[in-house]
Amino acid sequence: MTSALYDELIAKLRKAHVLGSVGDLLMWDEQVNLPAGSAELRGEQQAVIAQLHHAAISEARVGELVAGLEVGQDGPLDDDARTVVRWARRDHDRATKLPPEFVREKAEQGSRGFHAWAKARAASDFASYAPVLATNLELAKREAAYLGRGDSPYDYMLDKHDPGMSAAIIGPLFAELAEGLAPIVRTITSSGKTPRTLAPFPIEGQRTLLREVTERIGFDYTRGRMDVALHPFSIGSGADNRMTTRYDTPDPLDSLFSAIHEAGHGMYEQGLPREHYHTALGQAAGMGVHESQSRLWENQVGRSRGFWAFFEPRLRELFPTQLADVSSEELYLAINAVEPVVIRTASDEVTYNLHVILRFEIEQKLFSGELAVADLPAAWNATLQRLVGLTPTSDKEGVLQDVHWSDGSFGYFPSYTLGNMVAAQLWTTMVEAKVASDDDFARGDFSKVLDWLHANVHARGKRDTLLELVRRATGRELSPRYLLDYLRARYLPLYT
Amino acid sequence: MTSALYDELIAKLRKAHVLGSVGDLLMWDEQVNLPAGSAELRGEQQAVIAQLHHAAISEARVGELVAGLEVGQDGPLDDDARTVVRWARRDHDRATKLPPEFVREKAEQGSRGFHAWAKARAASDFASYAPVLATNLELAKREAAYLGRGDSPYDYMLDKHDPGMSAAIIGPLFAELAEGLAPIVRTITSSGKTPRTLAPFPIEGQRTLLREVTERIGFDYTRGRMDVALHPFSIGSGADNRMTTRYDTPDPLDSLFSAIHEAGHGMYEQGLPREHYHTALGQAAGMGVHESQSRLWENQVGRSRGFWAFFEPRLRELFPTQLADVSSEELYLAINAVEPVVIRTASDEVTYNLHVILRFEIEQKLFSGELAVADLPAAWNATLQRLVGLTPTSDKEGVLQDVHWSDGSFGYFPSYTLGNMVAAQLWTTMVEAKVASDDDFARGDFSKVLDWLHANVHARGKRDTLLELVRRATGRELSPRYLLDYLRARYLPLYT
Repeated sequence: MTSALYDELIAKLRKAHVLGSVGDLLMWDEQVNLPAGSAELRGEQQAVIAQLHHAAISEARVGELVAGLEVGQDGPLDDDARTVVRWARRDHDRATKLPPEFVREKAEQGSRGFHAWAKARAASDFASYAPVLATNLELAKREAAYLGRGDSPYDYMLDKHDPGMSAAIIGPLFAELAEGLAPIVRTITSSGKTPRTLAPFPIEGQRTLLREVTERIGFDYTRGRMDVALHPFSIGSGADNRMTTRYDTPDPLDSLFSAIHEAGHGMYEQGLPREHYHTALGQAAGMGVHESQSRLWENQVGRSRGFWAFFEPRLRELFPTQLADVSSEELYLAINAVEPVVIRTASDEVTYNLHVILRFEIEQKLFSGELAVADLPAAWNATLQRLVGLTPTSDKEGVLQDVHWSDGSFGYFPSYTLGNMVAAQLWTTMVEAKVASDDDFARGDFSKVLDWLHANVHARGKRDTLLELVRRATGRELSPRYLLDYLRARYLPLYT
Repeated sequence: MTSALYDELIAKLRKAHVLGSVGDLLMWDEQVNLPAGSAELRGEQQAVIAQLHHAAISEARVGELVAGLEVGQDGPLDDDARTVVRWARRDHDRATKLPPEFVREKAEQGSRGFHAWAKARAASDFASYAPVLATNLELAKREAAYLGRGDSPYDYMLDKHDPGMSAAIIGPLFAELAEGLAPIVRTITSSGKTPRTLAPFPIEGQRTLLREVTERIGFDYTRGRMDVALHPFSIGSGADNRMTTRYDTPDPLDSLFSAIHEAGHGMYEQGLPREHYHTALGQAAGMGVHESQSRLWENQVGRSRGFWAFFEPRLRELFPTQLADVSSEELYLAINAVEPVVIRTASDEVTYNLHVILRFEIEQKLFSGELAVADLPAAWNATLQRLVGLTPTSDKEGVLQDVHWSDGSFGYFPSYTLGNMVAAQLWTTMVEAKVASDDDFARGDFSKVLDWLHANVHARGKRDTLLELVRRATGRELSPRYLLDYLRARYLPLYT
C-alpha cells in the first residue's frame, strides 16, 4: 500500500536498513580483511555507524509515524503494511525504551565480560567468571523491565531471538525431544560401529569443492561471496551476502559442511522478497527459522544418500589418494559420524540438541533464581551426565565452553534446536510431497527444494512467527517428532 | 592546543573523518570484492554515507566554531591550531557554499558525462561528447563563482587539487620543462637503442615479488593491504591503507611498478602524524605532493641501479626461464624503456610530462574561451604533434582517451607533473645529502629515504602548500631543472 505517512516511514526504514548494511560490511571486513594494526579505526567506524543506525530507528518522527499508522490516521492498513508497522514499532521501542546510560553500561559490561570469560576459560577458573554472570543476569532482567517484560525476563530473552517464543512453549517440546533422543543415542553408541577418520584434504581441493557444491544447491554468487575467516559466519541481506569458512580444521569435510550451512543462511536471505529488504516483509522471521534453513541444507540435504550419490565421484576426483582405500559405505558413515562429546560445537547432529536442552534448562533456573550462579558448574555437569552420559574433566570443557553468556546473550541457544526441529518438519513435508527426493539429488538437482523454501518460507518475510510459519508451511503444529523420525530413519540403519 | 571551542571542533572533524573513511572502504570494497549483482545496494550505501559526511562537515555548529576560533574567541591559536582551523574553514565553505541543487545537478551530469564519454570513446565520436564537455565547463565556472572565484575559474580548479596553485605559477614551470624535454626525447629516439620486450611472468611470481619489494621499501602491511582490482589505486589513511594492483597487462613488470607507485602513496599516508589523521595536521598536503611520493618510489628509487642491484637476483630466481637469455644491461634498459606514444597512461617517465603539458595548455584555453569545444580535436592533435611528434590516428586515441573531463575533473592533470618535479627535486636533495644512495639500495636498505621523507614531507601534514613544502625540504624554489637533470643523468647514458 502507499500513503503519505506510510511512504515516509518506508523511507526512514530504508535509511536505517542501509546503515545497518554498512555496519554488516564493516564487521565482515574486520573478520576477513582488516590489517592487525587497523583495529582502532575500525572500532571508531563501527561506533559512528552504530550510533547513526540507532539514531535513524529511534528518531522521534519514526515514533510519530508508527503511532499515526497504528490508529489508522492515514486510512486502514492492509496486511503487509500491518506487518511493516508492527515491526517498526518493535524496533523503535527497543531503540527508545532503553536509557542511553543502560545501553552504554551493557555494552561496557559485554566487553569486560568477554575478556573475563576468555581469561577464565583459559585458566578453567569459573570463580573469576561468576561475578560477570551475576551482573549479566541482572542487566538482562533490567532490560526486560525497561521493555515492559519485567515479570518474564527469560521469555523476553527468548522472544528477542524468536518472536513469540516462550519457555512455556519450548519446555514441553524439548522434554519430548530429550526423551526421544535417549534411546537413539543408546542404540548408536552401543552399536560398536566406529566411523573412519578421513585423511586431510589439500585446501585448494576443499575450496573448489565447496564452491561447486554451494553453487549447485543454489547459492547465487552474483549476490554473494565466500571468504576465509577464523570462525565461519554469514552476514548481509540477499542484496550482498558474505559468507566465510575455514580450511584448517582436523575434519577434512568441516569446511564443506560449514559452507553448506552458511549457504543455507545465505539462500534464505537471497530468497526473501528483494523489493522489501528494508522492511519486515523482506527480512528473516527470526533466529530459529534462519537456523532451520542452514540446518536443512547442511543435514537433511547435505548428509543424504542422494546428495552423496551425486557428489561422491567429484570428491574422489579431487582427493583420489586420500580416499583410495575408503569404500562408499565407509565414506557415508564418516559423513554421518555420531559420537557423544562434552563440547557442543564439536557435536554431531544427533547429540547436539541435548547440549542445547541442557543450556535451556539451566538458563530457566538461573532466571527463576532456582539455581545460584555459584552452583552452575555442578548443575552443568550433573545435567550433562543425565542427558549425554558424559562429565567434563574441567570447567573449561564444561560450563566455560560457550562465549554467549559472557556478553549477556541469554535465550540464544534454544533457537539452534528450534531450527533443527523446524528443518526436520519442513523436510518431512517436502519428502511427502516428493519435493525432496534422493533421485533428484542424485542427478544434482536441488532446485525443487529451494523453490519450495522460497515459496513457503522465504517469501513470508517476518509476516509469521516461527509457530505460524511451521503451521502454514507443513499443515501441522511444531513438534519434535519429525526430527526424531528423521534421525531414526537416517542413523539407525547406519548404526545397527 | 586545547580549549572548549577547539576541542569541540576536533570532535566534529573526527566524526567527519571517520565517515569519510567508511566511504573509502565502501569504494575499495566495490572495486575489489563487490558481487556483480550487489551494485544497487552499494550505490545506496555510498549515497547515505556521502550525505552524512556532507552533513557532518557542513553542520552550522562547525561554521560557528570555526568563526569563533578565527576571531580568537577562545584565546589566541597556536600555529598548529591555525592550520586545523584554516582547513576546517576551507572544507566547511566548500560544503556549504554550493547550493544542494547545484551539487545534485553536477553529480547527475558527472554520471551522464561518464557514460557519454565511454560511448563516444568506443565509437571515436567526439561530436556526441562535445555538448557534455561544454556543460561540464559551464558547471565548473559556476562552481568557482559560488566559491568566490568567478574571476579565475581555472585557478580555482587547480587550487582544488593543489592548494595555492595557479596557472600563473604553473605556466612558466611547464614551459621550461617542455623546452628542456625536447632535446632529451630527440637524443633518445634517435639513439637507435631498442629495449627488449620481456616474456610474460607467471602471476604467482609477480605477487610474491611485489609483496617483497613493497615491504622492503617500507610499506607497513600491519596497517594496509594489497589486493587485485581492474585499475590500480590506493585509498584510506595510514590507519588502514588499501592498495590494489593487476597482473594481466602485457608488460610483466607493470604490476610491480604500479605496486611501488601505490606503496609510495601508502607510505605517505602511513607517515603522516598518526594522532592527527582526523585533522589537517595528519592529512596529505595535496595531489601534487601525494604524486611526488608515489613517483619518487616508482621512478627515482624503483628504476635506479642500486635498487636493481639488490632485486635483480630475486627477479631471476622467480622467473628463471623468462630471463634466461636477458643480460643485466638488457634488463635495466627494459626497465627504463622510453618510447613516445600517443596515450598518456602508456607513456614512459620521460615523455609522460609532455602529455600533461598538452592538457594544461588546452584546459587554460578552454577556460579562457580562446579554444571552442568544437575545435578541441584539432587543437589536441596539433599540440601533441608539436610536443611529442606524434598524431593520433583517431580521436579515441587522442582527445577522447582520458576519463577525467567527463565528470568535470578539470585542473587535475597538472598535479601529475608537479608531482614529478617535486619528486626529482626531493631526490636531488637526498642524493646530495647521501640519504639516497645506490650503495644502500644495493644492500636492500631504503630506510634513510623513508625516514627523510617522514621528517621533511610527511610530518608536515597540510601545514605547507606545495611550494612552501619544496622550499622547506630542499632549500630551493620549485624548478623543473631538477627533473630535467635527473632525466638526463638516468636516460642519456642508456640511450647513446
